[in-house]
Amino acid sequence: MAKTPFLTLEKAQEIVKDYPTPFHIYDEAGIRANVKSLVDAFSWNRGYKEYFAVKATPNPFLIKILQEYGCGCDCSSKTELMIARTIGATGDNIMFSSNDTPVDEFKLCNDLGGIINLDDITHIDLVEQACGKLPEKMSCRYNPGGVFVLTNGIMDNPGDAKYGMTKEQIFEAFSIMKSKGVKEFGLHSFLASNTVTNEYYPELARVLFNLAVEIKEKVGVSISFINLSGGIGIPYLPDQEPNDIAVIGEGVHKVYDEVLVANGLDDVSIYTELGRYMMGPYGALVTTAINEKHTHKEYIGVDACAVNLMRPAMYGAYHHITVLGKENAPATKTYDVTGSLCENNDKFAIDRELPEVEMGDILYIHDAGAHGFAMGYNYNGKLKSAELLLKENGDVQLIRRAETPKDYFATFDCFDFYDKLIAE
Amino acid sequence: MAKTPFLTLEKAQEIVKDYPTPFHIYDEAGIRANVKSLVDAFSWNRGYKEYFAVKATPNPFLIKILQEYGCGCDCSSKTELMIARTIGATGDNIMFSSNDTPVDEFKLCNDLGGIINLDDITHIDLVEQACGKLPEKMSCRYNPGGVFVLTNGIMDNPGDAKYGMTKEQIFEAFSIMKSKGVKEFGLHSFLASNTVTNEYYPELARVLFNLAVEIKEKVGVSISFINLSGGIGIPYLPDQEPNDIAVIGEGVHKVYDEVLVANGLDDVSIYTELGRYMMGPYGALVTTAINEKHTHKEYIGVDACAVNLMRPAMYGAYHHITVLGKENAPATKTYDVTGSLCENNDKFAIDRELPEVEMGDILYIHDAGAHGFAMGYNYNGKLKSAELLLKENGDVQLIRRAETPKDYFATFDCFDFYDKLIAE
Repeated sequence: MAKTPFLTLEKAQEIVKDYPTPFHIYDEAGIRANVKSLVDAFSWNRGYKEYFAVKATPNPFLIKILQEYGCGCDCSSKTELMIARTIGATGDNIMFSSNDTPVDEFKLCNDLGGIINLDDITHIDLVEQACGKLPEKMSCRYNPGGVFVLTNGIMDNPGDAKYGMTKEQIFEAFSIMKSKGVKEFGLHSFLASNTVTNEYYPELARVLFNLAVEIKEKVGVSISFINLSGGIGIPYLPDQEPNDIAVIGEGVHKVYDEVLVANGLDDVSIYTELGRYMMGPYGALVTTAINEKHTHKEYIGVDACAVNLMRPAMYGAYHHITVLGKENAPATKTYDVTGSLCENNDKFAIDRELPEVEMGDILYIHDAGAHGFAMGYNYNGKLKSAELLLKENGDVQLIRRAETPKDYFATFDCFDFYDKLIAE
Repeated sequence: MAKTPFLTLEKAQEIVKDYPTPFHIYDEAGIRANVKSLVDAFSWNRGYKEYFAVKATPNPFLIKILQEYGCGCDCSSKTELMIARTIGATGDNIMFSSNDTPVDEFKLCNDLGGIINLDDITHIDLVEQACGKLPEKMSCRYNPGGVFVLTNGIMDNPGDAKYGMTKEQIFEAFSIMKSKGVKEFGLHSFLASNTVTNEYYPELARVLFNLAVEIKEKVGVSISFINLSGGIGIPYLPDQEPNDIAVIGEGVHKVYDEVLVANGLDDVSIYTELGRYMMGPYGALVTTAINEKHTHKEYIGVDACAVNLMRPAMYGAYHHITVLGKENAPATKTYDVTGSLCENNDKFAIDRELPEVEMGDILYIHDAGAHGFAMGYNYNGKLKSAELLLKENGDVQLIRRAETPKDYFATFDCFDFYDKLIAE
């Protein structure tokens, strides 16, 4: 499947007049169409709610778009809770799914009325201590251990993951929570990351739905919501078949009827915590070719680096690249596309076949909308770029300014050399 | 070889009264003893100079200590040049070794009088364009390609590295630079990272010294300085034998006499660009155990995370951990030591044998002094920690304050919701 940029060269050239590269740009139309199809896919479930994984793209402007479709915020830290609060996503619109949690963050979540999703049984005491008493609505995170194998052979290794509780701990946790006055209970699990298969959610749902039935039998607790977490991925590679969210929704529906409804649990709300799926394809990193190098390999150096998008450096992840204006030109060259860090893993692509790149060409790095800007660091003292929104009407709006040296040096502002440091 | 913290439990307990964990702390006495031994090891070379790789630990307080021993700054970006300027390291005290360089950074380096170390032959034009004319003193970076194998079998792969020029390009570059008025010439190469062997520098030196002789013969240019770059590593593992810098210095000296002096090049200055070796062992990440978890494995959750030290997450790097106060306790437990990111690679240690850890125990993560704080990101909205200096007299000085939510949200300060966002 061809990967098509949501920007033309002409539009990009217009944008760079106001906002120099590199920048992240997001596609409002794409975000809206996608969230609408997600909500449609689960419309069979009365209580369905998507909690956007704020960590993927922590930008209030973007999350507010999702909010229009009923999405809440899946938060994992204090600052993410502050983002949720700022856009008015409080109460049941917050799901706090964190691990190794500092106790004061439980308190902030509770003050905002959010739902605490416990990663560990030991957290029951910490939440009680932080909040005075347990909230009436709470959730627990399950980790079945071992290896999770989908019917299509895709596997992941929850037994090696730090998240969640064992089945015995889940039973014990719900018993304790019930005895301490919790009234509404939820279940959560995350078994595999970035799955590009329509099978993952239904198979995960079956695990959690069966567990809900067991909990009802063994602990006498009726689960009121089941959180399928994240894990629905996107096709980074051009030849990958994307997920079909309608098929996934129907798949979960079928298992819901088979397991939950058949066991008298016919009013369980389904929650999701998608991040990558909501934003990944609708954000791009736009960068200009500024250096070419012909040594033991052919290199194109761009003005972005791993500071703007770390996934290739950290995971060896593939991100498709389009040379804008050369969408249909034959790929006659093989390049390493590099950033400027003194770190040899700072390469957006290795041995990538591309049309011949000329200096000044604008490169569009696909699928940078999630875990892109969010994972930016400042290694080598490089600054993070701006975020822009390509609106439905074609206008471009700044939704986060680029960093300046002053931002980079901010944590020296209490010292006498600070003014000298930031002088331009 | 046992790894010994430079902090005792008692000292750590005293420090946390003023500075809560997590924090990075650096050992002034260790930094001074180490830089002194480096300078001693190369004292046979009249022009020897270490340019500290600022990217490793970009903190002015620490670099100023090195400055007392004659060290300059190896910079790779605009902000690193700004740090050098702030501490008065200008002129020949700046080596600008960058790659895929934005043209305005060449200009800033030149304005400060620093030495530009060209990564690529195409940069000759860019520097000329940026600075009006080529500076009188310049350097070129060499990449021999292929595989670099040390006599002890350790190898790295310069042919796959984006850095430097081929031999033919080096000849051509020096010819052009000479014709354009450059008067003093240097050579630089980086062939392997974090070598823990006394052979690396002498073998690299032989490559560069032979090239200098060839350049003299073929291009008629006398090299005045040779920059051995970084690559001298530290023993992260407790059973690794550390480098002996005196042996390394003597090893380079021997090759200097054999190759350079024997060919009439008896006044070449040796430069180094060490980062990790200068700071790595003299910085620690200090963190408190705040969660314990007994699921499919045993987990200790701490209040630091990959935001404070990314090397384990990005490279799977080993960092030794000492439970302060339990230095001599038997290692009876096997833990994963985790941070709080929603990212399963956020583990400081996997299956690590440690004494039993109790909640509130202070963990000392070794060798975090280089590429530690510097590689910090803000994933999951987590904030970077403070940096402290343990002075020779035992006092503790804040040398960088911890981030606050206001820092994290700074790039939203141009929007109307900013005040709401940062409200505590």
